[in-house]
Amino acid sequence: MIWRATVLTLFPEMFPGPLGHSLAGRGLSQNIWQLNAVNIRDFALDKHKTVDDTCFGGGAGMVLKPDVVHAALQAGLESYQGAQPSILYMTPRGVPLTQNKVHSLVDTNPAGSIILCGRYEGVDDRVIHHWREHHGLQEVSLGDYILSGGEMAALTVIDACVRLLPGIVNTQESLESESFELDLLEFPHYTKPQNWQNQIVPEILLSGDHKKIAAWRHNQAEQITKERRPDLWQAYLNKKHC
Amino acid sequence: MIWRATVLTLFPEMFPGPLGHSLAGRGLSQNIWQLNAVNIRDFALDKHKTVDDTCFGGGAGMVLKPDVVHAALQAGLESYQGAQPSILYMTPRGVPLTQNKVHSLVDTNPAGSIILCGRYEGVDDRVIHHWREHHGLQEVSLGDYILSGGEMAALTVIDACVRLLPGIVNTQESLESESFELDLLEFPHYTKPQNWQNQIVPEILLSGDHKKIAAWRHNQAEQITKERRPDLWQAYLNKKHC
Repeated sequence: MIWRATVLTLFPEMFPGPLGHSLAGRGLSQNIWQLNAVNIRDFALDKHKTVDDTCFGGGAGMVLKPDVVHAALQAGLESYQGAQPSILYMTPRGVPLTQNKVHSLVDTNPAGSIILCGRYEGVDDRVIHHWREHHGLQEVSLGDYILSGGEMAALTVIDACVRLLPGIVNTQESLESESFELDLLEFPHYTKPQNWQNQIVPEILLSGDHKKIAAWRHNQAEQITKERRPDLWQAYLNKKHC
Repeated sequence: MIWRATVLTLFPEMFPGPLGHSLAGRGLSQNIWQLNAVNIRDFALDKHKTVDDTCFGGGAGMVLKPDVVHAALQAGLESYQGAQPSILYMTPRGVPLTQNKVHSLVDTNPAGSIILCGRYEGVDDRVIHHWREHHGLQEVSLGDYILSGGEMAALTVIDACVRLLPGIVNTQESLESESFELDLLEFPHYTKPQNWQNQIVPEILLSGDHKKIAAWRHNQAEQITKERRPDLWQAYLNKKHC
């Protein structure tokens, strides 16, 4: 089964965009994953192709219509022909994305993801509610900041998922040593020259003693996590002591 | 002064990408903001244009060379001709981005931002240290997940910044009512039809009583924040009682 992202958007021309280059782009051209950017406007019900309308109760901005978004989600789901993609709505009101969540998206739904991108003031809450209740739609947030629409968030989630697919990143080791995979931030890296502007690479890294190097790196990862992210550090300690 | 993003990347072809469309794209063509994607490889010091090398201490993956990255950062900074851009390195080891941080980036450094994008195992830690100590480089994280490189993160940060610039989003009201601007997640939105699949728009929103509507929306924002994000809710309560 090939992992496929179906993006429902008013700006299909934004895709593949940055995903057409580098690791993800090579994977796309090698058919390791697939991308389908669908224009929500194609599901408008009137001849003016209206996708949004004013907000009940007043206020600035327009809201995407529930009937139009519903039709787009239905067509997206049908395109998987019975396979079960995850269904994501990118919104700052969602559950914050984590690396564990990225893994679970790829592992739980190998068919891929349908990703709904909001614009303007967002999407009518009833269609989100309906798809949450009936189809397990998940509201997902990149972080506590606001973007001009869900498209950048969709690109980011897809990039995070795609790099975990077999055949995208060359070495498994590279994936395993990185930030969060051990619930810690990653240790620092150094390359040549050994002396750069009188900053010398830590001597232990030149020792050839792999056991000592691993211990040093683990210690560095612990220190930097403790210093920079007390929240992650506490979660790490709790998990360790379980 | 025109806000300008200077992105240091091995994949300048990824830019403007999605930022060339919709709100940000219109702002770019109207010169409300500017974008300069600079290829780090142009600052390689040898005839093979080498930008990376193996990691001291062993391990998979390559590390961007400190001398090359330093030269790219220097050229980036010089291009601001004495004005002070913020200098960001996008990495999961950084401080998590928040909407307050986005505001402070735009307000504190109206000249714009230099954004360094890592690839592979990242950047030699000494050049990051040097630029942090001498030029106030900030390590910034989109969230606790891993991307194939800093490019997607750079696109996201730029999108978040650009939409706050005057002239990008039409109505100030739209910016003010959204998630986080009041330290709460946003209230739900509804548009026509009033009855969609037997889900009826909350009656209060049709009342025309703006005071009651505002109170209902505030209450909804509080409820959803409390339910979904106990961390934000606690921060909101602490701030309210100060």
